[in-house]
Amino acid sequence: MILKDLAERLGCACEGDGAVEVRRMAGIEHAGPGDLSFVANRKYLARLASTRASAVIVGKGVPTSLPRLISDNPYLTYAQATALLHPAEPPGPGVHETASVDASARLGEGVHVGAYAVIGARARVGARSVIHPHVVLYPEVEIGADCVIHSSVQIRERCVLGDRVVVQNGAVIGGDGFGFAKDEAGRYIKIPQVGRVVIEDDVEIGALTALDRAAMAETRVGRGTKIDNLVQVGHSVTIGSDTVIAGQVGIAGSAQIGSRVTLAGQVGVVGHLKIGDGAIVTAQSGVPGDLEPGEVVSGSPAFANREWLKSTAVFAKLPELQRRVRELEKKLAALESAKDAEPSAAPRR
Amino acid sequence: MILKDLAERLGCACEGDGAVEVRRMAGIEHAGPGDLSFVANRKYLARLASTRASAVIVGKGVPTSLPRLISDNPYLTYAQATALLHPAEPPGPGVHETASVDASARLGEGVHVGAYAVIGARARVGARSVIHPHVVLYPEVEIGADCVIHSSVQIRERCVLGDRVVVQNGAVIGGDGFGFAKDEAGRYIKIPQVGRVVIEDDVEIGALTALDRAAMAETRVGRGTKIDNLVQVGHSVTIGSDTVIAGQVGIAGSAQIGSRVTLAGQVGVVGHLKIGDGAIVTAQSGVPGDLEPGEVVSGSPAFANREWLKSTAVFAKLPELQRRVRELEKKLAALESAKDAEPSAAPRR
Amino acid sequence: MILKDLAERLGCACEGDGAVEVRRMAGIEHAGPGDLSFVANRKYLARLASTRASAVIVGKGVPTSLPRLISDNPYLTYAQATALLHPAEPPGPGVHETASVDASARLGEGVHVGAYAVIGARARVGARSVIHPHVVLYPEVEIGADCVIHSSVQIRERCVLGDRVVVQNGAVIGGDGFGFAKDEAGRYIKIPQVGRVVIEDDVEIGALTALDRAAMAETRVGRGTKIDNLVQVGHSVTIGSDTVIAGQVGIAGSAQIGSRVTLAGQVGVVGHLKIGDGAIVTAQSGVPGDLEPGEVVSGSPAFANREWLKSTAVFAKLPELQRRVRELEKKLAALESAKDAEPSAAPRR
Repeated sequence: MILKDLAERLGCACEGDGAVEVRRMAGIEHAGPGDLSFVANRKYLARLASTRASAVIVGKGVPTSLPRLISDNPYLTYAQATALLHPAEPPGPGVHETASVDASARLGEGVHVGAYAVIGARARVGARSVIHPHVVLYPEVEIGADCVIHSSVQIRERCVLGDRVVVQNGAVIGGDGFGFAKDEAGRYIKIPQVGRVVIEDDVEIGALTALDRAAMAETRVGRGTKIDNLVQVGHSVTIGSDTVIAGQVGIAGSAQIGSRVTLAGQVGVVGHLKIGDGAIVTAQSGVPGDLEPGEVVSGSPAFANREWLKSTAVFAKLPELQRRVRELEKKLAALESAKDAEPSAAPRR
Repeated sequence: MILKDLAERLGCACEGDGAVEVRRMAGIEHAGPGDLSFVANRKYLARLASTRASAVIVGKGVPTSLPRLISDNPYLTYAQATALLHPAEPPGPGVHETASVDASARLGEGVHVGAYAVIGARARVGARSVIHPHVVLYPEVEIGADCVIHSSVQIRERCVLGDRVVVQNGAVIGGDGFGFAKDEAGRYIKIPQVGRVVIEDDVEIGALTALDRAAMAETRVGRGTKIDNLVQVGHSVTIGSDTVIAGQVGIAGSAQIGSRVTLAGQVGVVGHLKIGDGAIVTAQSGVPGDLEPGEVVSGSPAFANREWLKSTAVFAKLPELQRRVRELEKKLAALESAKDAEPSAAPRR
Repeated sequence: MILKDLAERLGCACEGDGAVEVRRMAGIEHAGPGDLSFVANRKYLARLASTRASAVIVGKGVPTSLPRLISDNPYLTYAQATALLHPAEPPGPGVHETASVDASARLGEGVHVGAYAVIGARARVGARSVIHPHVVLYPEVEIGADCVIHSSVQIRERCVLGDRVVVQNGAVIGGDGFGFAKDEAGRYIKIPQVGRVVIEDDVEIGALTALDRAAMAETRVGRGTKIDNLVQVGHSVTIGSDTVIAGQVGIAGSAQIGSRVTLAGQVGVVGHLKIGDGAIVTAQSGVPGDLEPGEVVSGSPAFANREWLKSTAVFAKLPELQRRVRELEKKLAALESAKDAEPSAAPRR
């Protein structure tokens, strides 16, 4: 695409030679002729000098003579430019001859169903949604319009997905929640999980992620939330909108996660608590109780990130701190002996 | 179902209006007319006053005028009531026309095999077991009676499941253990994993959980044990009976986990150790060595939970502790100088 | 197999009765007549006295009269002997009648494709590779020779595997990296992930492990590296050769992991950092920044393992350390009061 045409489609200013042709996005270090690249983080600005990209996306006032698109948000413009230079090539509409679609299931217009997919009784798939090979929709699953369900995703009975939901390969939506009651003999008796999972519009779910159905009502993921791979979402959890959950996070049952929350990689969240909007939990932390909106916490158990940073700094020097205490004990004992040995007009301690 | 009929089937006393009809289980806060609910935890008793449930399950002596079932174990009664009000509707017996069942495989009476399931050579499936779509049983797998194997579960050669085993979607039973020997060039040479996995009766295995086959003998999960989602059970691990393993736990090879053990979410267990019966490991902990029966441990490395709670409390105040030590050092140095400046009959230190 | 014949094939010395027949490998404690066992770790030498194995693999100079193979590396010899005594029985060449192989795909000689496998447009599978049932290769996937891809592995478009790659069941190669840009309204806009995954020769990938495709270039796993189950490898990560990554490790995007690195179970690695060759990260640690070659680190955040061991020892005694500080404060205050009460020729403090 000609750079200035791309600029027009993106609503960006174009500076330098707008006639260059760009065919692909590439990273600033790897880019070559015909590539468009970007710098979103100031610490990479130095690489503009040596890049072989034909053009770049940069913020205002960045010094370069390369053909460039100017953006207030270069990272977002990079996302949008990528979608234009690398248009998705979804499989066309149609149902593969090997797909097993129940007679009572309803497929919207333009739906694609791949090889060996199984669409269960009374399931519904919205217009233009793409169901890749080997997906299994149990009975009464509802999927909205313009969804992309990658291969081997398993969606259990009565679960509901909104519009424009993207699910990566192998995810499981609606498995039984981990519910058991102990009987008098100490054995665990299964509690039937009769709820469901509801995924709102524009949610993305990562590969091999598990979202358990609720015990009775619903496990819900709010609009626009993005969940990474190998995440565990327990039964009856609710998650707000535009929240980000990174890889291998585990959220125990009935936790309420707010909107615009960030849970970093491998975080653990205890059940039956409430994490307020905009809270941030740093990687590998364990959240044992409620968090206020906007709180930033770290550690296991997690507490204020600022304090945790200081505590971990001292943790690394604990042997030295212990030595200092021992030294103080020795010196103080010496002072006490010297004192006891003194003749003195002061009363004895 | 009429409340007093339900009471009879559950073996519970019924108080208040036993003629009310209940159709569904619901949580105490969400329940409406026609719903049965329950209170098992004293901290939720207050919600009885405002619930719109038609009837509730409560313990003895709970003050309420609602139609109610009285139980010594309301949580267990809730489990049993749910099974009655929401009877499972398993697919009926029969083999889907698209299932690929090896001629040498043997299916018990009343077995259901779903679309595109693959049953390998000499595999055996016990009476009334349900195999959902896309399950793959490699050769010589044995599955007992009354099992439920959800879609896309993969069971490798020669693995054995007992009766009434429930496996959630996408789990992998019998993948190769992580066994490699280093050669003289520093390369890792694969150790063929020729053992198998044995799952005893009444075990439940979560979605996307992996149980590796043993290097030579067996990886075994004892009767009644419940394993959550995304759990890793390494090769040659043995787990006792009625043990609970929460989501994303990792157990390294050859560990021996006892009976009635509780491993909370995201716990890690080092290999070749022994965890005694009834031990409890709290969330995110790392177990580096043997645990005695009944031990309760926390932390990474884990130690006595009571002590860990105290240590984490001090951890949060480490910067202050460091400051207090520095202050002591200053004050003690001042005392030492003052002492050195004193004329004194006492011998010099 | 007759022991001395096995010895010959393995290039080992044979001592004691070389005429015994061994049929299977077994662990030293479980072995019975007809079994071959091994002792690689000195702490198990005592079990030679009571083993019922017909023969054993041991190091030089180990005192036993059992028929034995002598090896400089008993563990490696055990691996090699297992391969001989338990030869793999791969399914023979051929394409299952139910496999869906695109007309434009190319299968090498001797390839096996199992039931319901889907081989996409222009995909290529190298000679003698085994594709088990339910594997899905999206368009333009390339798989080398002598690979084993277990059931239900999902490989996304344009990903490349080398020769002799083994992938355990349910793994996902090439899912979208977790890439989103925030727009002015605080919503996350998807960044199309247009890169791919490249897996070099002799790599092994565990069950239910996810390796994300790169945002623009490649996510690459180097020759001979072994990755365990339920591991998350983020987009644009590069991993060197002969590296070992244990279960449930998470590596965030753009991290560069060197060669001959060891990442133990449940380790987390932050993105955009570099771990030098031969570094070792112990279980459950969190790596927040670059590691030098050969560094051994522990903790979260991780630091030198030797120092971390000392710090965790003091951590377990923090309540006592706090008490000692409090005691020092009391005693020092007493000394200060005593001093203040003293008449003295020394100047007042």
